[in-house]
Amino acid sequence: MEARLFVQGLGTMADKSAVAADENWHLAKGWRFAGEACGMRGDQGRRDMALFVSDAPANAAGVFTTNLVHAAPVKVSRTAITEQGGKNFRGVVICSGNANACTGAQGMADAALMRDLAADAAGTPRGSFLVASTGVIGRKLPMDRVRSGIGAAGKALGPAAGHLAHAAEAIMTTDTRIKVSTRRIEHPRGAITLTGVAKGAAMIGPNMATMLACVFTDAPATPEQLRPALTSAVDRSFHCVSVEGHTSTNDTVFVLANGLAWPADAGQLDAPTLGQFNHALEEVCQDLARAIAEDAEGAGHLVVLRVKGTADEHAARAIAHRVAESALVKTAVHGADPNWGRIVSAAGYAGVKFREEDVCLEVDGIPLFRQGEPVDFDAKSVSAHMRNNRRLTFTLTVGEGPGHCTFYTCDMTEEYIRLNADYTT
Amino acid sequence: MEARLFVQGLGTMADKSAVAADENWHLAKGWRFAGEACGMRGDQGRRDMALFVSDAPANAAGVFTTNLVHAAPVKVSRTAITEQGGKNFRGVVICSGNANACTGAQGMADAALMRDLAADAAGTPRGSFLVASTGVIGRKLPMDRVRSGIGAAGKALGPAAGHLAHAAEAIMTTDTRIKVSTRRIEHPRGAITLTGVAKGAAMIGPNMATMLACVFTDAPATPEQLRPALTSAVDRSFHCVSVEGHTSTNDTVFVLANGLAWPADAGQLDAPTLGQFNHALEEVCQDLARAIAEDAEGAGHLVVLRVKGTADEHAARAIAHRVAESALVKTAVHGADPNWGRIVSAAGYAGVKFREEDVCLEVDGIPLFRQGEPVDFDAKSVSAHMRNNRRLTFTLTVGEGPGHCTFYTCDMTEEYIRLNADYTT
Repeated sequence: MEARLFVQGLGTMADKSAVAADENWHLAKGWRFAGEACGMRGDQGRRDMALFVSDAPANAAGVFTTNLVHAAPVKVSRTAITEQGGKNFRGVVICSGNANACTGAQGMADAALMRDLAADAAGTPRGSFLVASTGVIGRKLPMDRVRSGIGAAGKALGPAAGHLAHAAEAIMTTDTRIKVSTRRIEHPRGAITLTGVAKGAAMIGPNMATMLACVFTDAPATPEQLRPALTSAVDRSFHCVSVEGHTSTNDTVFVLANGLAWPADAGQLDAPTLGQFNHALEEVCQDLARAIAEDAEGAGHLVVLRVKGTADEHAARAIAHRVAESALVKTAVHGADPNWGRIVSAAGYAGVKFREEDVCLEVDGIPLFRQGEPVDFDAKSVSAHMRNNRRLTFTLTVGEGPGHCTFYTCDMTEEYIRLNADYTT
Repeated sequence: MEARLFVQGLGTMADKSAVAADENWHLAKGWRFAGEACGMRGDQGRRDMALFVSDAPANAAGVFTTNLVHAAPVKVSRTAITEQGGKNFRGVVICSGNANACTGAQGMADAALMRDLAADAAGTPRGSFLVASTGVIGRKLPMDRVRSGIGAAGKALGPAAGHLAHAAEAIMTTDTRIKVSTRRIEHPRGAITLTGVAKGAAMIGPNMATMLACVFTDAPATPEQLRPALTSAVDRSFHCVSVEGHTSTNDTVFVLANGLAWPADAGQLDAPTLGQFNHALEEVCQDLARAIAEDAEGAGHLVVLRVKGTADEHAARAIAHRVAESALVKTAVHGADPNWGRIVSAAGYAGVKFREEDVCLEVDGIPLFRQGEPVDFDAKSVSAHMRNNRRLTFTLTVGEGPGHCTFYTCDMTEEYIRLNADYTT
């Protein structure tokens, strides 16, 4: 598999087939990246150890899985952010191929050691790293490989797009493409850049549907600014993606800000710039979330669900979530079946009140259901439209309220079943 | 497809390949049944109109879909039970092939007319019938066919097992077997019998995963006794089955009791007999629920989930529900993959608190995970066991509490995807 570079910057999108530096790239200042292979994934030579290192101490915030059963690196990173008040971080270390989940006390010790090894390799103080893992659960980390992988990554660190691409590749499990997104905010005191990477929620071998994302920025943002910004951005991006509805033991999103965009005496983000920063962070997270749904394992269609007319955004998201998780909806999309009944009825059990006679549904502007009654559409031509378009947008209106959301999911295919059924056997 | 008779009575089970009367059958007294074909399903000759008629006025209770979008027959039957205080019902009419859902005002009129036609055919007062439908949604009922089907069924009514089998066949959609269960309570004043029929939550063509069940009994039970009995029985049976997690627009469970088991002057059920009745009702519903999961469309395995050690039954059911709805768990079972990580992690996002170090998981007595740590089991032999057994029981212990439940689901197969994707196209 050839890793491909998925880049989205400054509102334009380019899908690059070569891993190369490019003058259009805008990477956050003072960050270096590496991704090396240490044989953790079994298939020799695949990159599986990533380092992300800042030249200066960075502030950090994290959003973690809500699963009660969560992995050792989640526990270690959450504790680190809390204990350090979100300050004095120098980087993130991530391995793929082993989730270090359900591994008991040994797993906790291994995650802590992985953090220390990364700090040593980067030449930064112990305790300055965050850690994440993705892959098979229930197996101890092979610490000899972790050690050699981190050592190699430490030597390979660099600030170019190619380095970032290696790191983005090293966190992949069953992703077929790397996922990178950047945004830049022009400012008289210095341009502020946000560079995000992610891996998808899909999985074949690695057992778990883990989603990992990190946003590295040179913004002079405080921990108090980063926390609400990340929570809100995640709510409107990664929480608006459902591939299969399984909440992983390892889901993690980090944002780290080293402040190097501005001179040291330029102060913190003022209110208008903070607003721009929050918006840019949301956009980066949305790019990555959409890329995850598009690259979902075995998927044939990206499904965009727009829900409108609820009392608030929360209610809209609850409806979208139910529709996105319905196996009946997902198989109908796979079969190019304009089966509005499955979508409308899934909305009906989301726990959000609406009146059936207010409900309208369209696919890419074609009305299927209007004011609670079926529309007499041409099923054959709508089906052909669905078959021929990899991306389908369903717009579901349930009333006149101001609440709305955009949610991403994918169809469910025989390929999905095969990939997920045939792991150990 | 040949309809087969699935009978479970008095604790013994016989799977009969012939539709015939049998002295071991115990059908509720004073009930007659019919199932005829009126061409509603397209495939000519398949039975699609069922009548269930009592010789005397019966008390009734119903449990209906919680979906906000619910079908006209659901609205009509719920209103009838409420307005009549659960009294004076003489039967139930059910058609398959058309759900009469999302059909607006015309659908309401059609459901009411269907009720009246059934009462006319049975020679009982108007307003004495309950009504249910299952099948395609968003299409008007073909009332000429409904009329001729009800007429034919009225003429075919009879009290024998063969009549019941015809009615049970007429409510099927994609079920491959009819689902019938009976229980008898011996009593000095006269044996009390409960006869239940159901159709499954699976669907191919008909769009909707509707589950219908009716229990007909000769017990002298009041509406006030039937209501809590049915609610509790449904909680422990149909609410403990998940095939694909989609709540239908038409789900309906009725119980009707005509009191003919005892002489008219024998009075109502006393407390001990009521306890036996409640237990028998629960068992009938559990038989039918299990039969639904076993006959789920495209399924290769029946999965029995036993969850133990929670604070209460509700918490155990919440965990089982999450595990049962996980596509990752269902595909792993299909692939005979003893992938405990998927089960344990699905339990972790059920919203029920437990400690990871208390968690144990077994499949058919083989330990996979113990006290929060993986067990070093022989994956190849466990996988062979899973592949070779159509029924698999997973026992998940999460603590020492008294709460427990038994939940039924099935695996997810390529066949399921094909059946559900390829409907209109």
